[in-house]
Amino acid sequence: MLGLDTADLKKAEKGINKNYLPLMLRYQQVRQLSERLCQPLASEDYVIQTVPDVSPPKWHLAHTSWFFEQFILIPNLKGYSPFHPMYGYLFNSYYESAGQFWPRFQRGLLSRPTVAEIYEYRQHIDENMASLAIQMEAKEEWETLITPLIELGVNHEQQHQELLLADLKHIFATNPLRPAYQKLARSDLKEGAEIKGLDWCKFKGGLFFIGHVGKDFAYDNEGPSHQVYLQPFRLARRLITNGEYLAFMEAGGYQEPRYWLSDGWSFARQQNWQAPLYWEQQHENWWYMTLNGMRPVWKEAPVCHLSYYEADAYARWVGYRLPTEAEWEMAAQTLPCQGNFLDSGMLQPLPASIIAGDTLDQVFGDVWEWTGSPYIPYPGYQPLSGAMSEYNGKFMCNQMILRGGSCLSTRDHLRASYRNFFPPHSRWQFTGLRLATDA
Amino acid sequence: MLGLDTADLKKAEKGINKNYLPLMLRYQQVRQLSERLCQPLASEDYVIQTVPDVSPPKWHLAHTSWFFEQFILIPNLKGYSPFHPMYGYLFNSYYESAGQFWPRFQRGLLSRPTVAEIYEYRQHIDENMASLAIQMEAKEEWETLITPLIELGVNHEQQHQELLLADLKHIFATNPLRPAYQKLARSDLKEGAEIKGLDWCKFKGGLFFIGHVGKDFAYDNEGPSHQVYLQPFRLARRLITNGEYLAFMEAGGYQEPRYWLSDGWSFARQQNWQAPLYWEQQHENWWYMTLNGMRPVWKEAPVCHLSYYEADAYARWVGYRLPTEAEWEMAAQTLPCQGNFLDSGMLQPLPASIIAGDTLDQVFGDVWEWTGSPYIPYPGYQPLSGAMSEYNGKFMCNQMILRGGSCLSTRDHLRASYRNFFPPHSRWQFTGLRLATDA
Amino acid sequence: MLGLDTADLKKAEKGINKNYLPLMLRYQQVRQLSERLCQPLASEDYVIQTVPDVSPPKWHLAHTSWFFEQFILIPNLKGYSPFHPMYGYLFNSYYESAGQFWPRFQRGLLSRPTVAEIYEYRQHIDENMASLAIQMEAKEEWETLITPLIELGVNHEQQHQELLLADLKHIFATNPLRPAYQKLARSDLKEGAEIKGLDWCKFKGGLFFIGHVGKDFAYDNEGPSHQVYLQPFRLARRLITNGEYLAFMEAGGYQEPRYWLSDGWSFARQQNWQAPLYWEQQHENWWYMTLNGMRPVWKEAPVCHLSYYEADAYARWVGYRLPTEAEWEMAAQTLPCQGNFLDSGMLQPLPASIIAGDTLDQVFGDVWEWTGSPYIPYPGYQPLSGAMSEYNGKFMCNQMILRGGSCLSTRDHLRASYRNFFPPHSRWQFTGLRLATDA
Amino acid sequence: MLGLDTADLKKAEKGINKNYLPLMLRYQQVRQLSERLCQPLASEDYVIQTVPDVSPPKWHLAHTSWFFEQFILIPNLKGYSPFHPMYGYLFNSYYESAGQFWPRFQRGLLSRPTVAEIYEYRQHIDENMASLAIQMEAKEEWETLITPLIELGVNHEQQHQELLLADLKHIFATNPLRPAYQKLARSDLKEGAEIKGLDWCKFKGGLFFIGHVGKDFAYDNEGPSHQVYLQPFRLARRLITNGEYLAFMEAGGYQEPRYWLSDGWSFARQQNWQAPLYWEQQHENWWYMTLNGMRPVWKEAPVCHLSYYEADAYARWVGYRLPTEAEWEMAAQTLPCQGNFLDSGMLQPLPASIIAGDTLDQVFGDVWEWTGSPYIPYPGYQPLSGAMSEYNGKFMCNQMILRGGSCLSTRDHLRASYRNFFPPHSRWQFTGLRLATDA
Repeated sequence: MLGLDTADLKKAEKGINKNYLPLMLRYQQVRQLSERLCQPLASEDYVIQTVPDVSPPKWHLAHTSWFFEQFILIPNLKGYSPFHPMYGYLFNSYYESAGQFWPRFQRGLLSRPTVAEIYEYRQHIDENMASLAIQMEAKEEWETLITPLIELGVNHEQQHQELLLADLKHIFATNPLRPAYQKLARSDLKEGAEIKGLDWCKFKGGLFFIGHVGKDFAYDNEGPSHQVYLQPFRLARRLITNGEYLAFMEAGGYQEPRYWLSDGWSFARQQNWQAPLYWEQQHENWWYMTLNGMRPVWKEAPVCHLSYYEADAYARWVGYRLPTEAEWEMAAQTLPCQGNFLDSGMLQPLPASIIAGDTLDQVFGDVWEWTGSPYIPYPGYQPLSGAMSEYNGKFMCNQMILRGGSCLSTRDHLRASYRNFFPPHSRWQFTGLRLATDA
Repeated sequence: MLGLDTADLKKAEKGINKNYLPLMLRYQQVRQLSERLCQPLASEDYVIQTVPDVSPPKWHLAHTSWFFEQFILIPNLKGYSPFHPMYGYLFNSYYESAGQFWPRFQRGLLSRPTVAEIYEYRQHIDENMASLAIQMEAKEEWETLITPLIELGVNHEQQHQELLLADLKHIFATNPLRPAYQKLARSDLKEGAEIKGLDWCKFKGGLFFIGHVGKDFAYDNEGPSHQVYLQPFRLARRLITNGEYLAFMEAGGYQEPRYWLSDGWSFARQQNWQAPLYWEQQHENWWYMTLNGMRPVWKEAPVCHLSYYEADAYARWVGYRLPTEAEWEMAAQTLPCQGNFLDSGMLQPLPASIIAGDTLDQVFGDVWEWTGSPYIPYPGYQPLSGAMSEYNGKFMCNQMILRGGSCLSTRDHLRASYRNFFPPHSRWQFTGLRLATDA
Repeated sequence: MLGLDTADLKKAEKGINKNYLPLMLRYQQVRQLSERLCQPLASEDYVIQTVPDVSPPKWHLAHTSWFFEQFILIPNLKGYSPFHPMYGYLFNSYYESAGQFWPRFQRGLLSRPTVAEIYEYRQHIDENMASLAIQMEAKEEWETLITPLIELGVNHEQQHQELLLADLKHIFATNPLRPAYQKLARSDLKEGAEIKGLDWCKFKGGLFFIGHVGKDFAYDNEGPSHQVYLQPFRLARRLITNGEYLAFMEAGGYQEPRYWLSDGWSFARQQNWQAPLYWEQQHENWWYMTLNGMRPVWKEAPVCHLSYYEADAYARWVGYRLPTEAEWEMAAQTLPCQGNFLDSGMLQPLPASIIAGDTLDQVFGDVWEWTGSPYIPYPGYQPLSGAMSEYNGKFMCNQMILRGGSCLSTRDHLRASYRNFFPPHSRWQFTGLRLATDA
Repeated sequence: MLGLDTADLKKAEKGINKNYLPLMLRYQQVRQLSERLCQPLASEDYVIQTVPDVSPPKWHLAHTSWFFEQFILIPNLKGYSPFHPMYGYLFNSYYESAGQFWPRFQRGLLSRPTVAEIYEYRQHIDENMASLAIQMEAKEEWETLITPLIELGVNHEQQHQELLLADLKHIFATNPLRPAYQKLARSDLKEGAEIKGLDWCKFKGGLFFIGHVGKDFAYDNEGPSHQVYLQPFRLARRLITNGEYLAFMEAGGYQEPRYWLSDGWSFARQQNWQAPLYWEQQHENWWYMTLNGMRPVWKEAPVCHLSYYEADAYARWVGYRLPTEAEWEMAAQTLPCQGNFLDSGMLQPLPASIIAGDTLDQVFGDVWEWTGSPYIPYPGYQPLSGAMSEYNGKFMCNQMILRGGSCLSTRDHLRASYRNFFPPHSRWQFTGLRLATDA
């Protein structure tokens, strides 16, 4: 690793020298976190792909390294030659402009490179990133060209940390032995809390700005900032719980087409959905797989691993609807980014706090909230130039927007304008819902 | 048939008596048109289904009749019993609340009922609809309940007339014998016209109302009328032509991923798309199938049978974008509903007129125009009640909005607020594009 | 048609002149029968293909005509030009050496040529076949070349008559209206008969000749005649009945893997087989579709529409086995070719007669009998030369031999050496079983 | 492990005591070989499944252990309880009578149990097998019941050793890095040898016995011994080489349907076969993947990784045919079981020796030889009783017989009556061909 420590950071903060230190320290912390998240894994866990949406953990470790190699080191570090001539082919995810790539659905067919070789690859990238910083920090391109790419690469790796854990959950849940990633007891997670009935926060209509503003990092798809006209609306104070969702199931929600979008009904019938992903019925009780192992379904905790179709059907059944992304963002703009994140180490969504007042709860963290908004570009959207134009723009079709982050997201990776997106049938991410209604 | 004639209509117009006459005359005209459109068919043409999206012509004839039987005659005509106990099962399209239905993708597996039996079915429905009108015209439900349903049924049948012809085109184009539905010569279609380069109409931004207002018939999905905030924009004066699209093809448009949405690229590769649907290369020249038979591609005519993916890729290649549905509707609101419709009998899109001034051309008719807007409910949207709630609302996912109608649409079926929708990969409808750009 | 009549035949029999008459009269009779079998059809019934194994009736009518055109008229009739330039492409079944062909599984996607056009095609072929006979009868090639090909073409058309009816049964059984091809009452079919328990005929072992000998027509795959060594064995006197098969079903035959071949079990689970094809349970009673319409399952009649897997599982359940094709042929060699054929017009298998003595019953007709022998070439087998080499030889893999013909076979088409073959999962032909055991 | 050594064996040979020693020593040797074959593997190589036919190496190690546990230890070792309650579910291959099992095509979705846990499992089984031997050797069941099952289990594990290596080859060949299992140079393999043109050994016809006789171990499917009648035939002295097969390729063998069985042609087109499995063209030269890494195709070595369809097409192209299994066995009955086996450590087929005289060469070892005989039971065949009845009998459909063993087979596992079988499209085993013809 880079070998930076807190002393270095303090120097940097004092601005004494080495202006690259804060960025590279952040780089180092994120890179180390990826590896720390893999500490509970056996070599075998790194290799497999249980469904095409899931990538093997070692692929995540390699791909995030390739991102720095391909887009930063190769074009900018003098004398750098790729660690291995085939890794570009093996670890490019979907960048057509960066050349051909191994098919996504076959990522689990590769026993080599081994896990050890991939850790060597990471080491090699990190060392060369350090060289690059030293070599270039005085040059103008450092600020204009390299810094934004490192920022993007670091955020990219944070996204993959969340994916890695969600994928691991799928890998462990597929296995009849149901291995646990970690084993926090329920008492370690949160005090048992009685959840109150749903109440609402009211918002006025009018013209509002949404979209990212300011100089902090944001993805291209969060801008440009622009005006939208909203009618008055209300949002539920907290997320829908497992207990509430169970009521929908018991009322025949999965048997009754009238609550469902047509595509959703047909998909649910085809896949024989009867409950959220990872739920299993044992002797009339519902259990679910978590990163803390198999557990009885926790009724007060937010429902998770729903597709958009299920979230939408639930909302229709209960007489409400999902928020639009503009409603959600307007409501979240003034709230602090607090909540149950990866940083807490709980790795599962937790019950809402019992809070007074008229504030939204669980806005950030716990589960990604499906909105009723398809993922399309904002007015005037321009993708980044070059290869990075493929980062977000080409996926703006057939996906729905999710907002707010989950218990697998890092706190400093999120903000109110953050737009996540998945196809409406996806369930393996930590996805749930908050209700909305016209005021 | 009902046996109404122009004399009846005149009486009705004078308001002398029989207040049901105008509606039932419209009913009669639409019903007759469905059958007239089938006159060129051999019995065999009525039966087959070339792909799941296509329905056999006899199915269209029966389904539109079942619609009147199921939703109007059975609940409202005293003493009515269904024509055949199985027809509800066979000819229900997708109304879960009306009971089980024969799977869509198997509609072509039914040789019975025969075409003759389906014409008997239509006759039976028409006679009973006439009885219903006579029986109920004086009652209050006639106005409040029956009239809106007949309006809906008539519009429903007009939609199926368009589908029937698009399906027939697929049926004939699949056949290596390439039969023609009719044989208008190109000289019958339009004077040869030199098309001018693309120019633009400019529109101001601001808050605008879109969505249907007024008492005339409109589908539930066209409302409620509501405000949207638009930034200034420009729309191309006319549709993109085959000649212009050919330039995209010749520039490698189908080989170059950077113009394409990710889903579109992957679909196009999988299906090996190299040109719009129905185009074939013969000795270096492009031909296409039309309802007037195989023809050389007409360069001045609008390009047709594009998926959303292709329309979007073309727009990106040429440096522009597709309009949003709000932009399109705002621009079309003040224009008369004129153009090349089914009424002209041409059955293929025609070159734009050479017109002076600053008006949009080809807004209605010729080809449906893909917009960049996914099909979602308008704010405050409520579906119709009962079975009719399934008419539109449950399809509001994974589809894109198209506007303006085509050369297979009936003129009196369209309006500026009309929202058509298809999945982004669909190509068998008459679909093309108009460019837009930020002002 | 050829316009031959009985007077012509008598002349021919007397050998007065026109030596082609007997053959052409047979040609005429077979060609007429194909059309007579289609008399109950509506135009719509001719067009569809319910599964890839089924061909549309009009395809059978055209393909059998194309066979004469392609292999006899084009090479041998001076000045002949094909009826239509595309028919070779449309109606070639699988003769790679005769050029490209329209894919089998898409035969139901063609509304054109119409049924009327196909009857014209048949007429045209028949007239030209008559011209050919007149033109060539005196030449040497008539005997050496043309006569064998006409024999083959006539037998080929007889095979397709059987396929046509089996395909029609599938077409009618798929339709929820369950139309009947004809409506013979059960009393028209056969006297109610009490079936006796199974008894056996015993056969000695030793060296035997099997395979066709003599000058009468036989397919290439029936020869050469050769010696096989058989151990002593016994064959059941009659076919297994529906009642006996029902006992297997009621004993859990479809739920118990131990009776099944591994491939069969997996296929049966995948397709959810619970009974023979065309059986349906209504209020605890079993019914089945027949060419005489829906009927209660006739317990005394032979079980039909079994796959090889089911026939084999039944035999294992009851403690016996299927015969080998050599055993079957040796046992049938001395029996007359009598039974319930297409000639009877019953079109469904009938109960065995109550016969005395030690003879096998139901050997010919009723249902094809699955044997335990895979379809492979006899020692020294040579396919016909030229295009006809594709007639049989290339299918000698992955298929099982069936013997004896069915109630849809023409009597004069069969013989003891006749080898039919289908893949082991096939059920839409009239296939059943006779038990065997080591002596 | 059992901890037996040569001293123990010597005692046993002298018959002094411990009559179980020879058997258990053989058990120990075979069990050790499985693990020795895995020494070159990284943990990651043990886990994946590249296609459904391939099983992960760790699955082979566990399944062969489960076989002893399920069929020997559980029923016979007093006080034995299974190592893990889920291993029966995870490592049962296809024994329906032993309970449910994890689907074959999902064996690569399991990261746990880890490789280390599976080695513990093996250790546990081996220790308990030793206990069983000590506990039971004096009892009558030892001879009558246990000994035959251990024999079967040992032979079963030998089969899986061959499968394991063939699967590993697929795993390594799928990986673009093309890792080598071992790296013997070509000079380590065999002296360069000029191969002579094909010559033939002639065999008389008549009645012969085939099938296993005697008390040595053989599978149930090798019996009963029985008479068959053969016509005179000839067999090629040696296997077909890569060079000879290349001539077929260069003559358009993969483009010309007339050499192919219909199923084979359709399969080859669908899969776009252009060469044997594992062949790749680089700059006009053919290379292939071997367990010794990527190598230029060795023209003198036997062609390998052919499907039955390709072997049959080659034979037809060159004017000969494949032998029947009876011909092969009759010819091999008197030959010693010598050749290029796993024992040589070469792990790839080698050129034939230049031998004088009239003897067949390469009969055992090198590659499995496709015969033209489908896999069906011999007359009078009875499967083993109980669970073992599933070992062979239920696969007797849709597969072709192969004879002679390969360079991955252990010498003492083979004999002339040994019947191997695979579906005709299989290519990932070491399969090639020897020509035959009528005398």
